[in-house]
This record gives sequence, structure tokens and C-alpha cells, in this order.
Amino acid sequence: MEADEPPADGLDPAQLGLGDMDPAAFRRHGHAVVESVARYLETVADRPPLARCAPGAVRADLPAHPPRSPEPLEAILADVERVIIPGLTHWSHPRFFAYFASSASGPAILGEWLAAAFNANAMLWRTGPAATELEGVVTAWLAELMGLPPAWVGHINDTASVSTLVALAAAREAAGLGVGEAGLAGRPELPPLRVYGSTETHSSVAKAVVTLGLGRRGFRAVGCDPSYRMDPILLARAIAEDRRAGWRPIAVVATVGTTSTTSCDPVAAIADVCQDAGAWLHVDAAYGGSLALAPEHRALLQGAERADSLVVNPHKGLFVPLDCSVLFVGDPARLAEAFSLVPPYLRPAQASPGRGHSDLMDTGIALGRRFRALKLWMTLRYFGAEGLAARIREHVRLAQRVAALVDASPGWERLAPVPMTVVCFRHHPVGPEWDDERRLDAHNRRVLAALDAGGVVFCSHTEVDGRFALRVAVGQLRTTAADIERLWVELERAAAAALDGT
Amino acid sequence: MEADEPPADGLDPAQLGLGDMDPAAFRRHGHAVVESVARYLETVADRPPLARCAPGAVRADLPAHPPRSPEPLEAILADVERVIIPGLTHWSHPRFFAYFASSASGPAILGEWLAAAFNANAMLWRTGPAATELEGVVTAWLAELMGLPPAWVGHINDTASVSTLVALAAAREAAGLGVGEAGLAGRPELPPLRVYGSTETHSSVAKAVVTLGLGRRGFRAVGCDPSYRMDPILLARAIAEDRRAGWRPIAVVATVGTTSTTSCDPVAAIADVCQDAGAWLHVDAAYGGSLALAPEHRALLQGAERADSLVVNPHKGLFVPLDCSVLFVGDPARLAEAFSLVPPYLRPAQASPGRGHSDLMDTGIALGRRFRALKLWMTLRYFGAEGLAARIREHVRLAQRVAALVDASPGWERLAPVPMTVVCFRHHPVGPEWDDERRLDAHNRRVLAALDAGGVVFCSHTEVDGRFALRVAVGQLRTTAADIERLWVELERAAAAALDGT
Repeated sequence: MEADEPPADGLDPAQLGLGDMDPAAFRRHGHAVVESVARYLETVADRPPLARCAPGAVRADLPAHPPRSPEPLEAILADVERVIIPGLTHWSHPRFFAYFASSASGPAILGEWLAAAFNANAMLWRTGPAATELEGVVTAWLAELMGLPPAWVGHINDTASVSTLVALAAAREAAGLGVGEAGLAGRPELPPLRVYGSTETHSSVAKAVVTLGLGRRGFRAVGCDPSYRMDPILLARAIAEDRRAGWRPIAVVATVGTTSTTSCDPVAAIADVCQDAGAWLHVDAAYGGSLALAPEHRALLQGAERADSLVVNPHKGLFVPLDCSVLFVGDPARLAEAFSLVPPYLRPAQASPGRGHSDLMDTGIALGRRFRALKLWMTLRYFGAEGLAARIREHVRLAQRVAALVDASPGWERLAPVPMTVVCFRHHPVGPEWDDERRLDAHNRRVLAALDAGGVVFCSHTEVDGRFALRVAVGQLRTTAADIERLWVELERAAAAALDGT
Repeated sequence: MEADEPPADGLDPAQLGLGDMDPAAFRRHGHAVVESVARYLETVADRPPLARCAPGAVRADLPAHPPRSPEPLEAILADVERVIIPGLTHWSHPRFFAYFASSASGPAILGEWLAAAFNANAMLWRTGPAATELEGVVTAWLAELMGLPPAWVGHINDTASVSTLVALAAAREAAGLGVGEAGLAGRPELPPLRVYGSTETHSSVAKAVVTLGLGRRGFRAVGCDPSYRMDPILLARAIAEDRRAGWRPIAVVATVGTTSTTSCDPVAAIADVCQDAGAWLHVDAAYGGSLALAPEHRALLQGAERADSLVVNPHKGLFVPLDCSVLFVGDPARLAEAFSLVPPYLRPAQASPGRGHSDLMDTGIALGRRFRALKLWMTLRYFGAEGLAARIREHVRLAQRVAALVDASPGWERLAPVPMTVVCFRHHPVGPEWDDERRLDAHNRRVLAALDAGGVVFCSHTEVDGRFALRVAVGQLRTTAADIERLWVELERAAAAALDGT
């Protein structure tokens, strides 16, 4: 672990020649990066979680043109400290309560570090046997921890947007209309196709539907019950109505943990509707699926075993950094039907020992595949199933604490149930002059602006029943009970500031 | 840089509690990973480049079930050494000559390390200002280095498969048929849509066409000239013929550096055809675009300035590890038209300082976005424009050396021109009994198998005019002239072995 001394001109010996950074320089710079990252993680809580830089400030602080000559790595790392870090919104901040947290835990960071160095491209089994097989092993572990059917097969994509796109492409092909061969356009015999979700379904589903050529009209949002869960009776009615009008329903997306309120669709009842309709059932458990690692929350996935596909994002709830989205399918042949196209330069030259093992390129859109399984496997081992469950349980407990504070505090109003780790609420001052939704919306926008200006916590917002809601998502691995209490102090302060400014 | 002593039970102090790995443990493990990676990179040339493990061996060597309790990180890293590394095909090996190389250079590895720790998700400007703006800066640098129009805007996707899908989705929307709103199916007024490439176009284009709902029939492969370049006259003829038959041509994909032979389509002539046809021109320079960083190769991109979109993969030719694919578009509004769908939870709460700066989520399919710009920026700075050009030039020189060896050696036959860094050839023993294509194919399959068995070099193969070809791609940053000479020794040895075994 000894570091060599840097050369006098700051450049590494190999830098002016050909080839890569030399090993002594790599060691020296690598150890410096470890120290820099450790310092960053140790002090991230002292920074404002939401970046405070002005738009364009980062760009303005960097040369508009690339350097002609090599620069010392020290100079580059100095610019990272000077320009990049102050321009970051800190997803590793313990008081990052916005969107859904993505935690880069220690073991996961180290997993990414190894993966970057190995740089295995697991497009084919033979180009990355360990990466291909570890992806099988770790997704099977994850299925077991979530209580999913053991026969399901998991593949890792970058994001849930892509996992959902892949699942719905498989659904489109499974509809038996020969879309993979003949496409959708210029076929007068084809009905228009539709995918169903609820009014709370994530926007990535509509984006996938558009990408697949079904258009925004190809997505129908079904209404919800008062707890923001898809109403299966309305779903069945929508499907029947659409059939009469000539639509062909091909898939339904049920969500376990919607983005606004983490409501949980009644998957079993939706599975019944799908079965009757002959429609593919895709479960979007991108966020909510992780909770199933705590056995007492496994019931959230009830009915999901009847789905055709399910997505869960370890980069949301399982403490690995972006990107890591696992798509499970009951029948992997469906993916191959939708995606396999093998050109000669990727066809095995001889009966390859790798055939029979799936080549990951046949399971989705991207040909190149990073070794994403490594960080997930290292994280599952480092914390262990019980350690993960304990951390998830703690986040649920902390979210309940936020909900309790909202419920117990005059002037605050909860806007949705809290089945997972997200709390939607607003400040609702007492007095008849506040019985005005537009006024409340404007006030809560000011509360959020005051929170942002405070620079201590970062919350996001959403709409619940058309009302502007503050939204606190607990999930950062570093968040403690003290951060929740601090959050509450900041919320009270921001509400007072917003009232003062009224 | 002092490391703490590991605790006696091997577990880190924080591991059994809640929260993340503690800072002292992170430092200790981080420095251990630096040493492990440095050793890996120093000794990778001593391993066989192509993994020699049996299918299922990695899986069999790992527990089928996840651990209940935490495991010491040392135990996990020991398994990486024991099970994972021997199961890797080593993309960092200096004698990796297969497919297209992807080099994880020192500065790029360190860039990935920082990105993993920052874990910035640049879905919105505000969730990652520095990541969003650095992506703008570094893609502008890249455009300048490639000689592309300064007004073009670049975005980073994971792979060229996805960049091409995004480009063709924009092309589909730009056709003015209202596909984003109304979709393709059940619209008898719509013609079938077609995308054109050549017989040498990468399979990801057909995959994108299928994903977009145009079907395999929606891709038409046009014939090539004797140098495997798309014939623009055949293209114009195909488009005219298809129009008469009722097809609507929407896009043409021209390739600068095809996968089999790195042939280079005549982009300017194709641009003329596209202009006449009102079709979108997408240039697939995923591999070949990098060569333009050496000014003497910039002519390869002649005509590309008239394209609507162009993809180049720094993870192929610019020494950054997977994944990093840059999609340039002349008019970024086209991407927003195809992809922007903003739900309330992602809509800014107030006139946000970030509006006006594009939110990366609106530029493609994935919502979550890793901080991929960092490694590219660090690599461009560390080597400098001249350092990158020198390395690219050296790879061209080494490929020419391979071609010269093939051309000068009796019994070897080159099968295609070598405009870039890939050589396609075969062993063709002297004698009339070898004037048999099927016999030659079988023989060369044996040559390749003997090469693989040798464990010294890793080449891949392709088909050139239906003939089985050995394929050597130079591009690994660590490859030297000595590796080329060693390659040739191995090829001669493998050819002799294949003949002996005949």
C-alpha cells in the first residue's frame, strides 16, 4: 500500500508515451481516490443535500475546449473537488428525502470499483462467464429473499424504464400478432393495442408504450380507490369497454409501491382480470419489491407470483448505486422471442461450451452488458439477509415516525396512507381562510422553496388528488432517527417562513 | 492512507448494526481493493484472455442461497479472487483481439470509482447539476475532437443499441404521422414504415426497428460494393421500389466502421438519398467515430455533418469502460418530442433555476442516469487530444502490421480491406484440394478452436461474403507491437495444429 512519489512535472511516466497509466501511478492515484471518497462520504452530511449552484455555473467553470496535451491526474482530481462536488445533489446525504433514495453502500461501491476494472462485457456467456452466471446466482438469491417463484429467471438492466420496456415488448410479442416479424404499421387487420395501468402508474410505463409504437393512446390509466390503489373492477370494465370498441388489451401493469404515495395495487385481483382477458401481467415493484426482504412485508407481493414479469430496482431499495434494475420473468423464452437476432459475428464458431447458458444479449435491448451483478452480490453478502431486513425495517419505522409527527402536529395534514417508507402531506394552517386548495398549493410550494433554501434537508413533492403535496421518502442508508427529528424542525421552520412571506 | 486493523471476527464494527459500512472500514477495504485491482491489471497478461471455465462452474462454486448473516468483506474479496476472476474473459488483456476492444484505462477506472461514490442520478438538472452539465461539456469536447458541427448536442446512453433505438424513435416521430400520440396499430391509413441499412449493418439496428414496432420486415438491408460499403444507388432504388409498393421510408442508417470488416458507408452520397426521400439519416459510428480523433482519419466522417443523428461509443474506441455511448443530434427538440412525458412528481415545484437546461430524462428512455460523463472527461484530460490521437494512430499501425503479415505469408488470405483497425482473413493452405469453400470454413473453425485452446490470444470471427473469417480487432490500450508478433506466432501454430488434426 506504499505510494510512489509523484513525478516533478505532475505527469505520470507513461502518460506521454503510448498505452495505459502505469501500475505505480495507478496505485498512487487509486489510493488518493480512496482517501478522497472516504472524506466525501464522511463529510457529505455537512453539505446542503440539494445542489446550490446556479444553472450553467459548472459549465462556466470548465474549459469549453478539450486539452491538447495530457494533464496531471492531480489537476483533474483537484477540479473534481473544486467544480464537480459543489455542483452535485448529494444522493448519499443522510437527509436526502426526495424521490426514492438510491444508496451507494460501502460494499456496493467497492463492487462497482471491481466491475469497472474487470470491465467484463457479458453480451455473450463466453465474453463474461462469471458475469453471466453471477447474474443468474444473485437474481435467484433475490427471488428467494423476496419470496418469488423459484423458477423465475432474473436479468439485470440499467433502469426500471428499460426493464418495463423489455417486459412490455415481450407482452406485445406474446399477444400472438406476429409483431416482431411484421410490425404494427400498415396492417389493417390489426386492432389498436392497449396497456393498462392506474392513474398512479409511473410515467416510464407510458414512455415504454410510446416507444413500442402503441402511442400515448395505447396506455389507459384506470381509476383508483381512495387509497390510490388501482380498482380491479374499473380495470375489468375498461378492458371490456375497450374490447367492444375494437381495442386489443395486451398487458396490465400493477404497481407495488407507486411513485407518488407508495400505494400498492391489489395484484391478485388484477391477476384474475388479466387471466380472463388473456393479458400479460407486469408488476412494477421497482421500489416496493425491496420491502419484501423484511418477511413481515412480504404480503405486499401477494398475487405477484401469478405475474408474467416483475421489476425490482436494487438501486432504489437495496443499497446499491445506479444502475441496477432486475427484471424477473416466468418464461425467459418470451424475451428471446421478442429480442433474439443473432448476426454471424456473434454466432458461436463451434458448438460452444457456453450454449445452453443464455447469452444476456438475447434478454433485452442492450448488446453490451456491464458486470452489474457484482455490486449486488457483494451487498447481499456484506449485510446478509437479516442485515438488509433490519435496515429496511428501520426505514419503515422512521417513515412511520414522520407520519406520526404529521398526524400529531396542528397545522399539518397527511394526504395519503403510509404503507411503505414515503409520507405525503402538506402544511395546512388553521383558519377558514385556508379552506382554499389553490391557496394551500401556493403556500406549500413556498414551504418547499424555504426547505430548499435552508439547505439542510431535501424533500420532493407530488400531487395527491390534484393537491400539491410535500413528499418525504426515507431510504438513504445513512439516515438516522436524528435526521428525522432534524427534518421536522426544518419543516416547521420552513412553514413559518412561508407564512411570514405570505 | 493508514489502514485500521481488521476486527478479530472479521466483521466491521458497523456491520451488525444499522447504516452503512463505517468510514474506517471503508478506507481499509478501499485500499485493499486498489491493491487487488492493481495486481489484477499488472498480471492480466499472464492469464488466458478467453475464460477457460466450464459452463456452470462459477455457479456451482457459489452458494445457491443467500447468507442470512453478514459476511466479512475479506471473505467476499477472497471469493472474487477464487471464483470470479478465473471465470472472466479478460477485456483488459493486451491480446484481446475479439469483437471491438473496450479498454478500461486508469483515469477512466478512477472516474467510475468517483461516479459510484457520488451516485448522482442526473434524471433532472436539479438532481445532478454537475453530472448534467459535465455531460454537455464533455460531449461538446468530443464533437470538437471528431470535427462534428458545433451546434450538435450530445447525450450519453449506456450502449449504441439504446442510442440507435432513441435515434430511430425520434426518426419515427419526425415522420409526422403522429405515432407518439396515436401509435402504429389499428390505423388503416398508415403505410408500413421502413428503415434502411446495408447487409453489413449492426444487428442492433434491426433490434431497434423491431422494438419500435416496425417488425423485422421494417428493416431492409441494401447491398454493398465489393468493399462492403452500402451502395447508394441500390439504396435509392430500394427506397423508390418500396414507395411504389406502399412503404414509407423513415430512416437510413449509414455505418462508419461496420462490425464485420469496419467498412465505411459513403455517408455523403447516402445523405443525398435521404434528402430526396425525406428520411432521417442516422450514422452508426459507434466504433469508427473514435478514429476521427486522429485528424488524418477525420475524412471517415465526411458527410456525417448532414446527418440527423450520430452515435459514437467511447467505451469502444476511447479507453473508457462500459458503458458510455454518445448520441449526437442536430436538433434536440426531436428527442423531446419523442420522449418527453412529465408526471407531477418530476415537474418542478417552482420556476426552477434548472429549467432551460435540459433534463436528461427527456432525452431518451431511461429515467435514472448514472454520472457517465465523469470517466470520459477524466480520460480526455489525462491523455489529452494528442495522446488519444497517438494511441489511435498506433492501433491503426498495429492493424496494418497484421494485414501485412497476412498478405506476406503464404497460406494466409485477407478477406477484406483494412480501413480502420480490424483485419478479416483466413488460413488458406496451398493446393487444389483447398479450393473448396466448405472445407476452408471447417478448417478455419478449427484454427480458431486451436487459438482458443492455446490460451494466449483471443480473436473472434465473422462471415465475409458467406465465408468464415478470422477477425482480429486491435484496440486494447495495452496492446503493443510485441503482442501482434505473438499473435502471429499463435496463428501459425493454430493453423498447423488444425492441419495436423484434419
